[in-house]
Amino acid sequence: MYIEEIHSPADLKKVSRKDLQAVADEVRAAVLNRVSKHGGHVGPNLGFVEATVALHYVFDAPKDKFVFDVSHQSYPHKVLTGRAYGFTDERRFDEISGYSSPSESPEYDMFEIGHTSTSISLATGLQKARDLRGGDENIVAIIGDGSLSGGEAFEGLDMAAEIGTGIVIVVNDNEMSIAENHGGLYGNLQLLRRTAGKAECNFFRAMGLDYVYVEKGNDIESLIDAFGKVKGTRRPTVVHIHTEKGHGYGPAVENKEAFHAGGPFDLVSGKHVGGGGESYGSLLGELLRSEAKRDPLLFVVTSATPTIVGNTLSRRQEMGLQHVDVGIAEEEAVALISGAAKGGARPVWNVFSTFVQRVYDQVAQDLCINGNPAVINIHWPGVYGMNDITHIGFFDIPMLSNIPGLVYLAPTCLEELEAMELWAIAQGKMPVAIRVPGGPVVRRGRRFATDYSEVDKYLVERDGAEVALIGVGNFFGLAEEVAAEIERRTGLKATLVNPRYLTGLDAEVLEGLKSNHSLVVTMEDGSVEGGFGEKIARFYGDSDVKTLVYGIAKGLYDRYEVGRLLKDNRLTAGQIADDVCARIGR
Amino acid sequence: MYIEEIHSPADLKKVSRKDLQAVADEVRAAVLNRVSKHGGHVGPNLGFVEATVALHYVFDAPKDKFVFDVSHQSYPHKVLTGRAYGFTDERRFDEISGYSSPSESPEYDMFEIGHTSTSISLATGLQKARDLRGGDENIVAIIGDGSLSGGEAFEGLDMAAEIGTGIVIVVNDNEMSIAENHGGLYGNLQLLRRTAGKAECNFFRAMGLDYVYVEKGNDIESLIDAFGKVKGTRRPTVVHIHTEKGHGYGPAVENKEAFHAGGPFDLVSGKHVGGGGESYGSLLGELLRSEAKRDPLLFVVTSATPTIVGNTLSRRQEMGLQHVDVGIAEEEAVALISGAAKGGARPVWNVFSTFVQRVYDQVAQDLCINGNPAVINIHWPGVYGMNDITHIGFFDIPMLSNIPGLVYLAPTCLEELEAMELWAIAQGKMPVAIRVPGGPVVRRGRRFATDYSEVDKYLVERDGAEVALIGVGNFFGLAEEVAAEIERRTGLKATLVNPRYLTGLDAEVLEGLKSNHSLVVTMEDGSVEGGFGEKIARFYGDSDVKTLVYGIAKGLYDRYEVGRLLKDNRLTAGQIADDVCARIGR
Repeated sequence: MYIEEIHSPADLKKVSRKDLQAVADEVRAAVLNRVSKHGGHVGPNLGFVEATVALHYVFDAPKDKFVFDVSHQSYPHKVLTGRAYGFTDERRFDEISGYSSPSESPEYDMFEIGHTSTSISLATGLQKARDLRGGDENIVAIIGDGSLSGGEAFEGLDMAAEIGTGIVIVVNDNEMSIAENHGGLYGNLQLLRRTAGKAECNFFRAMGLDYVYVEKGNDIESLIDAFGKVKGTRRPTVVHIHTEKGHGYGPAVENKEAFHAGGPFDLVSGKHVGGGGESYGSLLGELLRSEAKRDPLLFVVTSATPTIVGNTLSRRQEMGLQHVDVGIAEEEAVALISGAAKGGARPVWNVFSTFVQRVYDQVAQDLCINGNPAVINIHWPGVYGMNDITHIGFFDIPMLSNIPGLVYLAPTCLEELEAMELWAIAQGKMPVAIRVPGGPVVRRGRRFATDYSEVDKYLVERDGAEVALIGVGNFFGLAEEVAAEIERRTGLKATLVNPRYLTGLDAEVLEGLKSNHSLVVTMEDGSVEGGFGEKIARFYGDSDVKTLVYGIAKGLYDRYEVGRLLKDNRLTAGQIADDVCARIGR
Repeated sequence: MYIEEIHSPADLKKVSRKDLQAVADEVRAAVLNRVSKHGGHVGPNLGFVEATVALHYVFDAPKDKFVFDVSHQSYPHKVLTGRAYGFTDERRFDEISGYSSPSESPEYDMFEIGHTSTSISLATGLQKARDLRGGDENIVAIIGDGSLSGGEAFEGLDMAAEIGTGIVIVVNDNEMSIAENHGGLYGNLQLLRRTAGKAECNFFRAMGLDYVYVEKGNDIESLIDAFGKVKGTRRPTVVHIHTEKGHGYGPAVENKEAFHAGGPFDLVSGKHVGGGGESYGSLLGELLRSEAKRDPLLFVVTSATPTIVGNTLSRRQEMGLQHVDVGIAEEEAVALISGAAKGGARPVWNVFSTFVQRVYDQVAQDLCINGNPAVINIHWPGVYGMNDITHIGFFDIPMLSNIPGLVYLAPTCLEELEAMELWAIAQGKMPVAIRVPGGPVVRRGRRFATDYSEVDKYLVERDGAEVALIGVGNFFGLAEEVAAEIERRTGLKATLVNPRYLTGLDAEVLEGLKSNHSLVVTMEDGSVEGGFGEKIARFYGDSDVKTLVYGIAKGLYDRYEVGRLLKDNRLTAGQIADDVCARIGR
């Protein structure tokens, strides 16, 4: 066993070159041990094991700096930089994250990274600082081909060349994004692979970068040769390595998309454990596919995450031109749907809450100023989404709801989600975003409005007195629980409001509450700061109605446990009932 | 005279080819008439006169669709599509905007566009919709070389090729951004110019696009030939035209940067009228240049707008490596400063409020999650900035202040700005944004704190009673006026608070106010929704203290007049004093 003896790259350098593949095999086994039991990114890491061994063999971390794009391929790097325990010892899995993290390894991890296409840009910062300092360390950015389609990666390439000094950009080309690659650029990568990097028409050279091609991207010897040649370079240099996603593990090679990332799986059979139950995403996908069949002008857009709505390969093929994957290029997604809506089509973009952050300006400018009737579904918002520090979904309400011209709807259950979605697709008047509820699928067993074109009209779901509870989207259920708890304790029947719209105040309903309510309480599954409740607090600020605003306190959260987080933010029905009863003196 | 007879492109087509240059000359004269008297974009329009004539001669608008990037080069298009009056008749200048605008011309203008690098992406939406509809119109995106460095443009090129059907992308290469071009890509444009488009290494072909080069980009005949050949193409096709920025007007050709855009100028001498007075930006620039001399690790970053802090060409040259222009690539700017701060340098990025919208995710992820001590100066925020619908500066507080990990400071005057800037550069602990005040330069004639590392500590500038006025940044002066007005009317001395920090609540100060205040009033120069005042309203929501929140109401604003806007939002001292006196019953 080698990796037990490798506590840092210095230890790796003591291994003889002929034994490095054995090290790689152990690293791969360690990665598989973790991901099969714990879940995580599979294919991206398996394909990059040999390259990581070669990088650490050739370069001198921590003096030399590595910046991993998305950093979902940094597991082998973690194994070789003193964190093997996080892969070999099940009891210690939780001590490491799935991404690069300076708080975990200040020496070897430069940045907390989880969103794509940032590595080269961040690395140009290290490059610039080194140049000003007069340092001589190597700066190495590692980016997958799937991430190259993101605009920030392009901006980084452009600037690396502009700075013009030494930086190494390893392009890990496994011919895949999360799903297959999309975009004209990939034709050039294919041409370069086919010509062993010799084609004259070379995207990277066109960007002003030096270029090296390595066909055998899973062969340690070839990689060491190539990295050795560019070590110490005074020029911005791309090393394009052709790897196999999932390399060394049959099921991951055979089914690259399913093994990009996911929950635990059986190592022998390659079958995923659990999962596959119904979700808002999959049910919304059914509705969209069925509508697409009825309406040839409807098309569904994804930015490299088609299965967010269950659009598997066979379904994508069936949808034909009505499925569009822009690749990892969220800005393009927004402009595309705005332009297409202007052109008379009915586009729907599905995106995770954490990634919609990438398009504030495109939503504001390309879409909302133009008032084009495109639809954006925001998936996994709030506390029930991904929980890594880089993937938090708390910010969609502060970000989207304050942009003029957008209607942002928050359905409380499946039936309301479907009603809002059908309206949004058909209405043809305004840009609409819909907050796909987080958490388990709720059915309320009744019909909802079919027309939402009169905006900012809240729905008073139950008339009560003294206390009004406004529950936003999937937290309407929480408001119901709080109401029940208050009634149980005091006999008081609180008013229940489903605001439906996150983008404005319903002055009529809110004014109406003044006559027989002394306290209005808001609950939202997201950040309090800049969110919905603060607008309600402003509205009542100079009146006699008091307000309590519940949501997640501002802060950086990492791998939180949902129950704990809710409790810490006083977001359980019991806690809120306590607060309410104390305020109204019952 | 031709243009008096040209009310639409159909009229232009009646002109014989040999007379088209005469038309172009008239269009140029009309453009010069407007920009010399009214201000606006000069060079970009002058260089694109012949190309616009050729485009409208060859293509068939409004059936064929043009999408202009930034749309600051769309003046000739406006002249030829029924809006010549906005250029020839001084009384009607205000009837047209400086950008493309469907509300002005639903037939000929596809989108409201003012931010860069969006045209190709928006055009891919029109392309996709046409394909679904089975239409055959031509879609033509027009983008300048300066805008190509923006990531969204790259994403658009990539997707245009992916869609693979007919779209024409005119690259207007005048060898300039606002200032000179930056980035590796421009080397390839240069190579293509030098080889008359024949170089094998071709960025556009590498992106999967067909490519045509036109050396004489100000020659109508050459342009008509080239456009005629690509009209009706079934392939995504770039037409790279080499133009001269400012063409046909000597002073604009000689001084391309000064004549990019600006206020009125004397047509004969080419001298700009007025301007040149002191501004927060120019004074901040002095401080930065002086600090850069003392500290070799300090560098100043711009994204293509160096003169925001007075960094003229000679000053840029003097600063050497300590001036970095990333080109139009705001995402790169944020990642660069984060990485450079991590690497031990002291980077400062100057950006307009309206453009910081392009980097929500980069500020959140690349910078704030990582806690790197870079500095961002937000220029022209609030009502005193640019006032076109696409360039509104009201949203920096809602956008930035709700991102965890950022410290956003709002100085009230020049001295406080300088104190905060010096601290921000030196502190080395956290990411800091500074809201450079809008409006005329205010000096308060005293010293301010030199250490802001204990965050979210408000400054009570005057102790009073009953009413507390919290004036944010440059609206602290308004709070002072309101206080004076209240005192004049009632004798009451209101408390005055300078919150200094926009990113959090000072519970101690705010709690303290409860004992002897019944009303807390906030005033901010920006959007109310998601802004600072709402946080104060939330804080006091369940207390006996009432709140009034002043700022700009949510909405789409276009070419507003500042005084009118302030009055409409009850943002004059008299109006606020009226409200306060009514609330406290005096």
